[in-house]
Amino acid sequence: MKYSVIAIGDELLIGQVTDTNSPWIARHMTPLGWEPAGVQVIADDEQQIDRAIDQAWQQCDVVLMTGGLGPTKDDITKGVLCRYFGGELVHNPEVERNVERVMTQRHLTVNQTTRTQAMVPSSCRIIQNQVGTAPIMWFERDGKVLVSMPGVPHETKTMMKVAVIPQLTQRFNDGNHIEFHTLVVAGIIESDIAERLDAFERQLPPHMHLAYLPQGGTVKLRLTGIHRDGDLLKQQMERNVALIHQELGNAIIGDGDKPLAAIVGDRLRTLGLTLATAESCTGGNIAHQVTSIAGSSDYFLGSVVSYANQVKTSLLGVNEADIAANGVVSEPVVRQMVQGVCKRIGTTCGIATSGIAGPGGGTPDKPVGTVWMAACRGGRVVAQVLQLPGDRMRVIERATTEALLLLLKLLD
Amino acid sequence: MKYSVIAIGDELLIGQVTDTNSPWIARHMTPLGWEPAGVQVIADDEQQIDRAIDQAWQQCDVVLMTGGLGPTKDDITKGVLCRYFGGELVHNPEVERNVERVMTQRHLTVNQTTRTQAMVPSSCRIIQNQVGTAPIMWFERDGKVLVSMPGVPHETKTMMKVAVIPQLTQRFNDGNHIEFHTLVVAGIIESDIAERLDAFERQLPPHMHLAYLPQGGTVKLRLTGIHRDGDLLKQQMERNVALIHQELGNAIIGDGDKPLAAIVGDRLRTLGLTLATAESCTGGNIAHQVTSIAGSSDYFLGSVVSYANQVKTSLLGVNEADIAANGVVSEPVVRQMVQGVCKRIGTTCGIATSGIAGPGGGTPDKPVGTVWMAACRGGRVVAQVLQLPGDRMRVIERATTEALLLLLKLLD
Repeated sequence: MKYSVIAIGDELLIGQVTDTNSPWIARHMTPLGWEPAGVQVIADDEQQIDRAIDQAWQQCDVVLMTGGLGPTKDDITKGVLCRYFGGELVHNPEVERNVERVMTQRHLTVNQTTRTQAMVPSSCRIIQNQVGTAPIMWFERDGKVLVSMPGVPHETKTMMKVAVIPQLTQRFNDGNHIEFHTLVVAGIIESDIAERLDAFERQLPPHMHLAYLPQGGTVKLRLTGIHRDGDLLKQQMERNVALIHQELGNAIIGDGDKPLAAIVGDRLRTLGLTLATAESCTGGNIAHQVTSIAGSSDYFLGSVVSYANQVKTSLLGVNEADIAANGVVSEPVVRQMVQGVCKRIGTTCGIATSGIAGPGGGTPDKPVGTVWMAACRGGRVVAQVLQLPGDRMRVIERATTEALLLLLKLLD
Repeated sequence: MKYSVIAIGDELLIGQVTDTNSPWIARHMTPLGWEPAGVQVIADDEQQIDRAIDQAWQQCDVVLMTGGLGPTKDDITKGVLCRYFGGELVHNPEVERNVERVMTQRHLTVNQTTRTQAMVPSSCRIIQNQVGTAPIMWFERDGKVLVSMPGVPHETKTMMKVAVIPQLTQRFNDGNHIEFHTLVVAGIIESDIAERLDAFERQLPPHMHLAYLPQGGTVKLRLTGIHRDGDLLKQQMERNVALIHQELGNAIIGDGDKPLAAIVGDRLRTLGLTLATAESCTGGNIAHQVTSIAGSSDYFLGSVVSYANQVKTSLLGVNEADIAANGVVSEPVVRQMVQGVCKRIGTTCGIATSGIAGPGGGTPDKPVGTVWMAACRGGRVVAQVLQLPGDRMRVIERATTEALLLLLKLLD
């Protein structure tokens, strides 16, 4: 069964907001066998909405529409849908009660603008929004379904999970099975992986497909298969995943679609180790990535973000003379930082970074993008310097990845 | 002049990668007067690419295509474009030299897979990729232009900036001016702002438009205008921005499209104050947001991420008896955390958080989403508790925003 997404909103089209709903929807629909036919991002504009529905309707069984349902003037979707599917806007007392319930929970009073949420097309079935005021509208025509949802990511995701996906699954069922498997690879670039997997890819059955997803320092390999025979597909998936393991060996750092911080976290937990970070140029991002993983308090104890030099010396015990002699972006400093933070916080493992994220601060010797990093496990400390490309955010993100990979090498 | 974007890639369509190129392109094209007609996200599939070009070509003067140009097997765009625009794939020695140059810079050797980058359609003009191996292809037909670029965000953005945008600006010029102004509002929800701005919106000239962009705790208001008379438009923009200021007063926390961390940073710099953070449930994300702003070392000195209780007591001086009596998610603890970190790092201002981000750790008294936070300036400490909705990441992000807003109130 095919579906497509229409994401509505001027704010998306002019780039002030990034559409994160469509990728989320895809991550949750495709494992259930739904084939994504495409995403259209369009403005809050009647003609564009009309044309987008026409096109999606031709290609798909289901159209999922997000956004354009807020109470303010730039949201016009509801009127367009009412005209497209017929009927008229009618007052729905259940929606009004729901609006009042949600506003009360938020300690807010219902104003006239919010109250217009209760006017809905007579041609749709309403699903009450459990976490917001804009109702979900389910339209059917010629055996196809269009579901219109609010665009606030929390509301879209919650209502997809609790209502829309279960109801679509019940309504459609084409008997196809789908299998996914993701492997995370580090230390080899995409084109070298492709050369090593050339013979592998040529032997894949036509209903299986390998995709390469480079992500700043790692490459995710995703093997997908769709087939009516679910058991056969499972066997083929297992066999082919094993073949990739044979070919790439220990360049595979993770089995399954996990962030690097979760891969590192799993190893720390398995080995019974604990982690602290001492961050200068990464400014807390390593700690943030590590603590974004649920359950990270099992192994992560804390961090010192030592942005100013005085914090490096007073809290982490870095030697002032070494800073004076080598500069703060140097091997002796990151080595002392990582040892200092492990001692101070009382952990067995640590990560430290010191670098120049830019745009200012570069010198001919140490240009913007120069990052020293160290990792330790027990008494063993390793350090490396990298010259990272890109702007400030890219240097911070890449340094975070490389520092986690440096620690991972100590966790075999 | 209208443009649209076609983002190609299975990885986008199944949601493993979020398309951040399209919003970036929009943020850089619209200020130059380009009107975005839409974004299509499609698979690495010949038919879909054909159909997407047909559609974009009908509506727009310029089609910007990203992705589908890597050397690996799942990238087929180049062949489709060659068939679509005619001609044949020919070897381009300049592209080959560029591939060798880029690979050498990266300390990599050119393999056969990478070398195929040098085969390009004879029907296009090549723009050499300064930061990657896949060439940029510029096709023209019937006075319209299609530019195909690699999808790696760093490459897309760099080549848009240094080549594609300047060349498009030169090629097209319709004489329209565009003006934008963004105001950041906190403490009022979207629908209440809409009520207060109802009369304002009704008096706007037809070529001006106000958009509401709620972003977890703040609302961005973006006023846009497009007109042939640039001076008139500037005057109207100034007058209408002043009207919004009159209406919303000090609910406006920022003038211009700035992240909250930059608004807080500007105030700290102006007031000559310094900042440290003591983070438990936000896990370093406040420090990360603050240090994502270039120049933040002017006022940000450091942070202690005190995930484990022992770090709260040993590094921040939180009283163990208070933790035992009130729990770690409590007012006395965040007050001691913020005072402790200011003293320890030697700053005039501080922020502290302690909460339950979930999914585990909730109790009937303190369910998931309960976050205590404190801010201080000099001797003055303020604290508040919030009950934040959503999953782990949403609680962390919202707590980060609310903690920064709490400090901002002390920076008048």
